[in-house]
Amino acid sequence: MDTFYTGTSEGSHRAGWHFLQLPGPTNIPQRILNATAVPAIDHRGEDFAELALGLFDGVRKVFKTRGEVFMFPSSGTGAWEAAIVNTLSPGDGVLMFDSGQFSYLWIEMAKRFGLNVDVVDTNWRCGPDPEMIATKLADDKSHDIKAVMVVHNETSTGVTARIEEIRAAMNSANHPALLFVDTISSLGCMDYRHDEWGVDVSIGGSQKGLMLPPGLSFNAVSEKAVEASKTAKMPRCYWDWQWMRENNATGFFPYTPAIQLLYGLRESISMLGEEGLENVFKRHHRLGTIARAAVEAWGLDTVCENPKEHSNSVTAVLVPAGHDADAFRKIVLEKFNMALGGGLNRYAGKIFRIGHMGHCNDLMLASSLTGVEAGLSDAGIPHISGGARVGQSLMASGNTDSKAA
Amino acid sequence: MDTFYTGTSEGSHRAGWHFLQLPGPTNIPQRILNATAVPAIDHRGEDFAELALGLFDGVRKVFKTRGEVFMFPSSGTGAWEAAIVNTLSPGDGVLMFDSGQFSYLWIEMAKRFGLNVDVVDTNWRCGPDPEMIATKLADDKSHDIKAVMVVHNETSTGVTARIEEIRAAMNSANHPALLFVDTISSLGCMDYRHDEWGVDVSIGGSQKGLMLPPGLSFNAVSEKAVEASKTAKMPRCYWDWQWMRENNATGFFPYTPAIQLLYGLRESISMLGEEGLENVFKRHHRLGTIARAAVEAWGLDTVCENPKEHSNSVTAVLVPAGHDADAFRKIVLEKFNMALGGGLNRYAGKIFRIGHMGHCNDLMLASSLTGVEAGLSDAGIPHISGGARVGQSLMASGNTDSKAA
Amino acid sequence: MDTFYTGTSEGSHRAGWHFLQLPGPTNIPQRILNATAVPAIDHRGEDFAELALGLFDGVRKVFKTRGEVFMFPSSGTGAWEAAIVNTLSPGDGVLMFDSGQFSYLWIEMAKRFGLNVDVVDTNWRCGPDPEMIATKLADDKSHDIKAVMVVHNETSTGVTARIEEIRAAMNSANHPALLFVDTISSLGCMDYRHDEWGVDVSIGGSQKGLMLPPGLSFNAVSEKAVEASKTAKMPRCYWDWQWMRENNATGFFPYTPAIQLLYGLRESISMLGEEGLENVFKRHHRLGTIARAAVEAWGLDTVCENPKEHSNSVTAVLVPAGHDADAFRKIVLEKFNMALGGGLNRYAGKIFRIGHMGHCNDLMLASSLTGVEAGLSDAGIPHISGGARVGQSLMASGNTDSKAA
Amino acid sequence: MDTFYTGTSEGSHRAGWHFLQLPGPTNIPQRILNATAVPAIDHRGEDFAELALGLFDGVRKVFKTRGEVFMFPSSGTGAWEAAIVNTLSPGDGVLMFDSGQFSYLWIEMAKRFGLNVDVVDTNWRCGPDPEMIATKLADDKSHDIKAVMVVHNETSTGVTARIEEIRAAMNSANHPALLFVDTISSLGCMDYRHDEWGVDVSIGGSQKGLMLPPGLSFNAVSEKAVEASKTAKMPRCYWDWQWMRENNATGFFPYTPAIQLLYGLRESISMLGEEGLENVFKRHHRLGTIARAAVEAWGLDTVCENPKEHSNSVTAVLVPAGHDADAFRKIVLEKFNMALGGGLNRYAGKIFRIGHMGHCNDLMLASSLTGVEAGLSDAGIPHISGGARVGQSLMASGNTDSKAA
Repeated sequence: MDTFYTGTSEGSHRAGWHFLQLPGPTNIPQRILNATAVPAIDHRGEDFAELALGLFDGVRKVFKTRGEVFMFPSSGTGAWEAAIVNTLSPGDGVLMFDSGQFSYLWIEMAKRFGLNVDVVDTNWRCGPDPEMIATKLADDKSHDIKAVMVVHNETSTGVTARIEEIRAAMNSANHPALLFVDTISSLGCMDYRHDEWGVDVSIGGSQKGLMLPPGLSFNAVSEKAVEASKTAKMPRCYWDWQWMRENNATGFFPYTPAIQLLYGLRESISMLGEEGLENVFKRHHRLGTIARAAVEAWGLDTVCENPKEHSNSVTAVLVPAGHDADAFRKIVLEKFNMALGGGLNRYAGKIFRIGHMGHCNDLMLASSLTGVEAGLSDAGIPHISGGARVGQSLMASGNTDSKAA
Repeated sequence: MDTFYTGTSEGSHRAGWHFLQLPGPTNIPQRILNATAVPAIDHRGEDFAELALGLFDGVRKVFKTRGEVFMFPSSGTGAWEAAIVNTLSPGDGVLMFDSGQFSYLWIEMAKRFGLNVDVVDTNWRCGPDPEMIATKLADDKSHDIKAVMVVHNETSTGVTARIEEIRAAMNSANHPALLFVDTISSLGCMDYRHDEWGVDVSIGGSQKGLMLPPGLSFNAVSEKAVEASKTAKMPRCYWDWQWMRENNATGFFPYTPAIQLLYGLRESISMLGEEGLENVFKRHHRLGTIARAAVEAWGLDTVCENPKEHSNSVTAVLVPAGHDADAFRKIVLEKFNMALGGGLNRYAGKIFRIGHMGHCNDLMLASSLTGVEAGLSDAGIPHISGGARVGQSLMASGNTDSKAA
Repeated sequence: MDTFYTGTSEGSHRAGWHFLQLPGPTNIPQRILNATAVPAIDHRGEDFAELALGLFDGVRKVFKTRGEVFMFPSSGTGAWEAAIVNTLSPGDGVLMFDSGQFSYLWIEMAKRFGLNVDVVDTNWRCGPDPEMIATKLADDKSHDIKAVMVVHNETSTGVTARIEEIRAAMNSANHPALLFVDTISSLGCMDYRHDEWGVDVSIGGSQKGLMLPPGLSFNAVSEKAVEASKTAKMPRCYWDWQWMRENNATGFFPYTPAIQLLYGLRESISMLGEEGLENVFKRHHRLGTIARAAVEAWGLDTVCENPKEHSNSVTAVLVPAGHDADAFRKIVLEKFNMALGGGLNRYAGKIFRIGHMGHCNDLMLASSLTGVEAGLSDAGIPHISGGARVGQSLMASGNTDSKAA
Repeated sequence: MDTFYTGTSEGSHRAGWHFLQLPGPTNIPQRILNATAVPAIDHRGEDFAELALGLFDGVRKVFKTRGEVFMFPSSGTGAWEAAIVNTLSPGDGVLMFDSGQFSYLWIEMAKRFGLNVDVVDTNWRCGPDPEMIATKLADDKSHDIKAVMVVHNETSTGVTARIEEIRAAMNSANHPALLFVDTISSLGCMDYRHDEWGVDVSIGGSQKGLMLPPGLSFNAVSEKAVEASKTAKMPRCYWDWQWMRENNATGFFPYTPAIQLLYGLRESISMLGEEGLENVFKRHHRLGTIARAAVEAWGLDTVCENPKEHSNSVTAVLVPAGHDADAFRKIVLEKFNMALGGGLNRYAGKIFRIGHMGHCNDLMLASSLTGVEAGLSDAGIPHISGGARVGQSLMASGNTDSKAA
């Protein structure tokens, strides 16, 4: 019988569920996994067209828009690129904020495409300042700035941009710049209103609040953005809205779409509808509030400094100087089978991030807080014990409103 | 857009994972779910035979036997029936213990088949008393008792029978009775040694420690049991070992087997082997220890009174008199999307049971304890708060040995 | 790169779909596979009860009954046993027909349970003779015969019993015997009317026309059968209707049900409803007609001799004397990745069986006929070439009515 | 019971398997579907890196290269774009052949990116002429042509380009142009040798011979292509090899990869390895030979005119003038649940295409031929009956070598 006992793991803590508490990719519900585990069909046939046409409607509801949406078989990064190459021309001025790793990467992309990027550093602990935007735009008498590009929920820091205020600032400056918003890690988590907030291009991805595998990305676009695309001079093909539009009209795509993910998307939209999108936002608000209460109780700081800008889908926590956040994460992974997000770029090794987005509930967060607190102890990171319990107490009371930002 | 917002759930706590903290059926790993989601094959063909022959070997390792094992497409209850109808004759005496709901049901079954059951009530808070067995058998000079039938892990109470001591008692009485043991909720969770402990018929099921869907059951049998089956007079067909054996020899079954579950079983055996069976037992010991520490900290009592008989796969907790355990469970289900086991029969409404068997780890248990503690508060059940934290502290320290029974 | 080229199969014919043209288990639609690939839930909870109560309704529609149905976690063989032990007593007389392997096995089971079986051999090429039944019953003045037990669709021979005529014969004899019918390989394939035909116990299984994995079985019962169960003296527990009924009333089961298969059953019932049960029967009639036309064109004989008794779910074909049907089947499996059914018992090596039941359509049958014809050539079995084409021509014309029995 | 009979389909031919005989997407084996139906993991973690590093090795074997490969979360169209933007600069000359719809689309893409495309029309019935390439390159004394871009297997016509001869022609002209080859519908179907044939950029996709869902694409690149990328001036980000390379070195990607498809890819590579890549090619050669024999027997013409250029993964068939290929395909879909490919662009309505690539075997092709022949009859398209049978006869004999091109 000896050969059977091949196990080598010491404490066997890798058994049981893997707690994927990343800020994306996120936990995929079995309903969605199964929806994607289906044979392909003819992507030029009637059944496919019926599927696709229904999806455009559904995605519009998620973005809260009555306008056009485009779906690409790509990562969210591709939808960033689509936004740029469809609407801008080399040399165009854009106003962007270096407010986190994804903001930074988008800036780098803009530069690669020859845009003249006015980069504002936010110190990564707060979001873009609406007043500064107003000032910058007011100063731009010649309207060199063609677009203001912001990340709604900066996944790397847990800081949320105040899109409504940014829109108001742009309006106050009476400036024609387009507004681009990356909603990759907020869509389906926090309220987002493409039409009402006057966003021109919203960028979304599948693997966060939509609870899908990665591989689908979105652009929701305003008429103004469509108009801009008619004169934009960047070369484009894969990301070209016009090519997409010609095919989408009848429920098709210019090239083979990610059929299985589209079936998954149908299920995702159903699930959001069943729960009610506003209830989904309330749930994330509750989860974010609980996570922050725990961090506060541990005596630790979130990266986010402005109470108005706390993310409800991810909480980024600073570890005290001299301690290694990645060593801590490794302990948590090995001992508790839980994956936490790490610090990126200027925060490498200095923070950890708890994802609580998408298919997440109170007890999943309770596990996360337990694993974090235990890991802090094991890693010797100074903290006040009891944060997990504080978070859990809020769950018990069921009332997190008074704690909310 | 209005029709989209169809959600009616208030707090939306049903989103995210469903925490299935029952003492069976248990959480099924995705590996096993996928292993079962396969087309059927010819159950009279070579590929099937190769699968089946490998499974017999694997199941033997799980039971720690070199003897014969039988696999039935049925619930565990069927394997109880198989044990009886293959080895006994109407009117045979058997010694059984009314030590919980499943013990009770097995007794009822024995009576239905015309056995002369000597029922010993244990008050449901402890397991069968080895000394009493020794005495009973010693008194049975005429060897009317043909079998001693005990449940290893009484799922309804969280009390574990001391099989090794029972075997020793039987040996000391020098009595030829067969020993039948129900291992349904202990197999793959707590150490079990069919051969070494001299068990004659072990009964197992798929949906507990084996992490499979329900629908497969097992008999592991000694040569003595096989010998008994040659003269046993109960009519039998579906459960007949001899019919099984004739087919099993070449890797087949007398009737259509549960093909998909057998594929799942192959994966289950692989997973147990990868972790190492002894590590699996250590993990459950750790989980049981943590659960009991939390119960103690809440100031509540486990049903199990004898520290030597605590189950490591399920913990049954008494709620104080005058309180309704089922109302509490309903709150936990609705608010936290967690299913706990309820009290059965004489414990209906009086206890709740936390399953921590099979595909379970520290953070899953942490969630359970959190949900239980919050639910106790919400249900107004008197308890000392902090039990969840005590359990979680043990996880942090990683050392539960000093707390173990 | 060398190690990559590990393939050893010569002609690589095992690539692509496996054609499972057995008379069960049958091809499982992806919809059903995915419906079964789901986590377990509390089988004592409200969600489960809702599922189960809906299933009883659905299963009644499939059996065309308004009476009770029971669902067992077992193979179909178990539902045979359930029919016997619930309604009869040792020594009871029963009239049965040795008309194929499954008829034979059921007879053997009846004998094991002490029934006094009057066995009529049919030569395995025709079904039970209604006139003989009328005579036998008329002769049984003392009403020793308590049940007539017949197999509707004898899977081993492709012969269908004329249940409606048998019922009429029983009525004409004015005899109170119960009528038991095994519908395992006809349910969901050929018209079956439990109530209208006055059947007392119908026996069904999951892995044939219901397109499910094996592991679920059914009893549909008349009030007369229920009445008989009140005085029947066979010991029973696992199969006990009364125990089932007490639990089923509220949507539960006396022991852990095969939860995942029940989810699959829900999907199966939906699919049958979407196609329309009568359309399902027409499709099978069409498939059977085509298969028989091919056999006739090959100059081969079906086992079934009576044109009124041809099965529409399986076609059994005699190979000329001196030829080995199993060697032929082996060629077909290895060369074409298609599994055909073999001959059983007195037909071992003498016939092959083409299953065309459940999730089957014209082109699947076209493949089967192609593989059979090619295999006949390769195995050197004398036949007129062109049978596959004849079958395919019927598909083209879309009109098989003139060929129907 | 009435509400149950909701089926409205007349002949119910949509039951059973859907025959997806498209030239992509293709039939996905259950093994691969299940491999993709898994939770996400941390794409920045060690487990992921181990997966990815193994995949790079495997993909190299499939392309037969020891060089670099890149994997994009995109459709194959994206990998075309990646090839262009990484290696070329606006205004660069390229030599391309308008030899089918996909060749045409690639040309259109090249134009969008400002390339100076020398387009050669081939009449869509033959592939690029190696001699013409030699002449064109010899004439290009100033080396204005930076790349020759050809489609290996033109999916829209079933014509295969002779890459080895094209390479020889380029060598004979002693011209430094890069060679780009689209292998999307040949990879894993027909022999392809990136290194040996001196290809500089090979473009692949997931949903054809690799048997995966759509959503992954590939570039295999030579050192010369890498060198070219260092000076290429097209802006790029999503498709940038350098960004990819920096991350790939340690098993990661610059943005979230299509994790689930990568798990599927691992399974795909395993399956190709188990069968043996050369056996996979033999199987497709056999399938192509059989398909062409049937077409010939029907008295119909393939689009491909040059016997040396027949595709083994797709057969495109011309319908006689005055007949509508799409009406025919609609009949086949509705009556036989089989999807065939249609004509594109200049062949719209004039041809149909039978895909026999990827997870395909003899009997699947037999079904296709049956469905096609029946559909031709039903659609009133003139043909000699018996083509299906001719194809099937070749299956029986098992010897298609004499018929091979």
